[in-house]
Amino acid sequence: MSDKTLCINVARLQSRLQCLGEVGALDGGGVSRLALTDADKKGRDLVVSWMQDLGLDISIDAIGNVIATLKGEQELPCIMMGSHIDTVSTGGLFDGNLGVLAGLEVIETLIDNNITPTTPVSVGFFTNEEGSRFAPDMMGSAVLSQVLSLQTALQTQGIDGAKVEDELKRIGYNGSAEFTNIKQDVACFIELHVEQGPVLDEQQIDIGVVEGVQGISWQEFHLTGISNHAGTTPMQYRQDAGLVASKVSVFVNELASLMAPNQLATVGALTLKPNLINVIPNEALFTVDLRNPNESELQKAELALQEFIHEQAKQHGLKVEQKILARFQPVHFNPKLVDRIETLAKQNTFSTKRLFSGAGHDAQMFAPHCPTAMIFVPSYKGISHNINEYTHPDQVTNGANLLLQTVVDFIS
Amino acid sequence: MSDKTLCINVARLQSRLQCLGEVGALDGGGVSRLALTDADKKGRDLVVSWMQDLGLDISIDAIGNVIATLKGEQELPCIMMGSHIDTVSTGGLFDGNLGVLAGLEVIETLIDNNITPTTPVSVGFFTNEEGSRFAPDMMGSAVLSQVLSLQTALQTQGIDGAKVEDELKRIGYNGSAEFTNIKQDVACFIELHVEQGPVLDEQQIDIGVVEGVQGISWQEFHLTGISNHAGTTPMQYRQDAGLVASKVSVFVNELASLMAPNQLATVGALTLKPNLINVIPNEALFTVDLRNPNESELQKAELALQEFIHEQAKQHGLKVEQKILARFQPVHFNPKLVDRIETLAKQNTFSTKRLFSGAGHDAQMFAPHCPTAMIFVPSYKGISHNINEYTHPDQVTNGANLLLQTVVDFIS
Repeated sequence: MSDKTLCINVARLQSRLQCLGEVGALDGGGVSRLALTDADKKGRDLVVSWMQDLGLDISIDAIGNVIATLKGEQELPCIMMGSHIDTVSTGGLFDGNLGVLAGLEVIETLIDNNITPTTPVSVGFFTNEEGSRFAPDMMGSAVLSQVLSLQTALQTQGIDGAKVEDELKRIGYNGSAEFTNIKQDVACFIELHVEQGPVLDEQQIDIGVVEGVQGISWQEFHLTGISNHAGTTPMQYRQDAGLVASKVSVFVNELASLMAPNQLATVGALTLKPNLINVIPNEALFTVDLRNPNESELQKAELALQEFIHEQAKQHGLKVEQKILARFQPVHFNPKLVDRIETLAKQNTFSTKRLFSGAGHDAQMFAPHCPTAMIFVPSYKGISHNINEYTHPDQVTNGANLLLQTVVDFIS
Repeated sequence: MSDKTLCINVARLQSRLQCLGEVGALDGGGVSRLALTDADKKGRDLVVSWMQDLGLDISIDAIGNVIATLKGEQELPCIMMGSHIDTVSTGGLFDGNLGVLAGLEVIETLIDNNITPTTPVSVGFFTNEEGSRFAPDMMGSAVLSQVLSLQTALQTQGIDGAKVEDELKRIGYNGSAEFTNIKQDVACFIELHVEQGPVLDEQQIDIGVVEGVQGISWQEFHLTGISNHAGTTPMQYRQDAGLVASKVSVFVNELASLMAPNQLATVGALTLKPNLINVIPNEALFTVDLRNPNESELQKAELALQEFIHEQAKQHGLKVEQKILARFQPVHFNPKLVDRIETLAKQNTFSTKRLFSGAGHDAQMFAPHCPTAMIFVPSYKGISHNINEYTHPDQVTNGANLLLQTVVDFIS
């Protein structure tokens, strides 16, 4: 970068990442700050204290989203950055936290350089992005996006029986600020995040230019056949639910190959009954996770699966019950914003790759309402939701500087 | 049958089957008499009382096998019938019990007709054939066959923590009779049993002429890959243990088709870890049950499985651990005895089918030491180890009369 280009303070950002990582730290590394627990409260308090130190305007809404804003010259819609600081129970130091702390670092860099932006610049962290304690995930941003009602969110019961409303009150984050109206109040939203996949690391690429979020189709299938003696039942008399479940697993894998490279297919959960060595399984309960950045391709995969499973069930005399567990259409980020990020990255001589996010992110809740984009930095070996999650300080620096430049682009 | 042909007393046999079925009866039908429990003791006492009523010599050995003998004209090796009266926890009224009570009925028919056989005729029931409470199964006949030592058998601990030796003492069946020396004391062994499979019922055949018992190969495989995010990990970077387990399940099924009709293959148990919808499984633990009446064919199947799994593991970057859980060579019954049973069945105008037993039976413990054969009668829909196990009275009668005629053949 030229001397005139603004740069973030690497040491300060790294120190904050480490400092936040000490809240809810786990033996052996990593962190556990499930949403709205005591650990989450401590993490929130720490980040809010840093926001306060910078003299930012802090708003906390009724679902506990926290947004800190540096005033602009004009009362215009803001440039918003942000992500989340809750983690899974065996989380790393970067997932979510990087997007929030890099956003804070961008604002502090503006302040350090005595820059008053033309428009307000905000950084937010949104409640319960992970969904590990309370379903659904992306709860806080989903309420902002009005795809989830505040009442439904507040009444949600967690895996430990606790209710969102009670837990928000208990930790003191049941705020009274008005909800951000994304359409009216946000000029654009940019989220920096670790990739959580192996592509950038494997291909040694500095920056992932995220074009959108893959569509997700989660289905659960329950096949019922007849359990029988594995030694006395000839193959042609069997109604083996386990075999057909396995055939489906192999089929969707082949389907992904046929529809490469965009189609993903995973049978992650599979349970047989009675699950005994010498009894033909009469029940198989399993999930199929299909993802594709292209909605019509995703529908094509769903249809192929549907046809295959019903043809197989008929052939093997099985009953099929199926349930849609989740279905999200692909999200496409703002093409101009995506192009601009790519251009800025190249000006920095960062190597780049355009890709779709395989995981869900708060940014996808903003995308329908305002120009939105994401920047990915590599995850070592693609490891995430794991105490060994790691992104090298140079890669963190690259991502944060690119975030800074993207924001500066808007305000100067 | 001609007027001169001996016939069993159908009503008496049916009544005893029902009467024994009331000991340990379950709601909705069926019976639970796990080996050496109070229910087993009551069942044993009842059958022994019937043996006593007939004035038979009763011997109980140190593993609790009970053998009742009708004296012959000569002190020659005996013709022995028998099976077991212990059941699985949700057993039916016929599995095992039929072979014992039909044997008793054969002896009573001889007595009713004032026939003193040339050689002694015995009927036995052997301890813990099912193996549901104490492993291994076929325990009593295995001790007779000297494939299991008495000491090992007595020290066996059950699923409830009880020890065979203590339980035998507790129920009063730790006998002091000398062990039957099969080679010296038994001229031939014949076991009548329900098929426990669907073939005879499906094909409406009266009698299964059993040529032997299939060889059994039980293996457990533990595949280890790497768990990763189902949405962020491209297909080519995956080390999916669940997928390879499914491929093996499909492969062994195809192998059975290629080696039809004798080869059977079942993946009955399969567990994935972490077993979550959106995580690529890093562990798969599963079993493969291969059976074939031909040892070299069974070895061929084992080898094909071995090659497939290692090739797949290599391709997908998985670690394979494998364990042999059981391995029995096929058992071949005495060809002359098998032929004779078939001839007698045909003389009765019974429809017959030669087949191999898919399940293990006490008879296979006798086969290495004396001429041995089995007679199968149909099981309704092949249902067994189930409270709905059922064989029609006419089929029971056919089987018991054929058993009677086979015995009469030897003694007259």
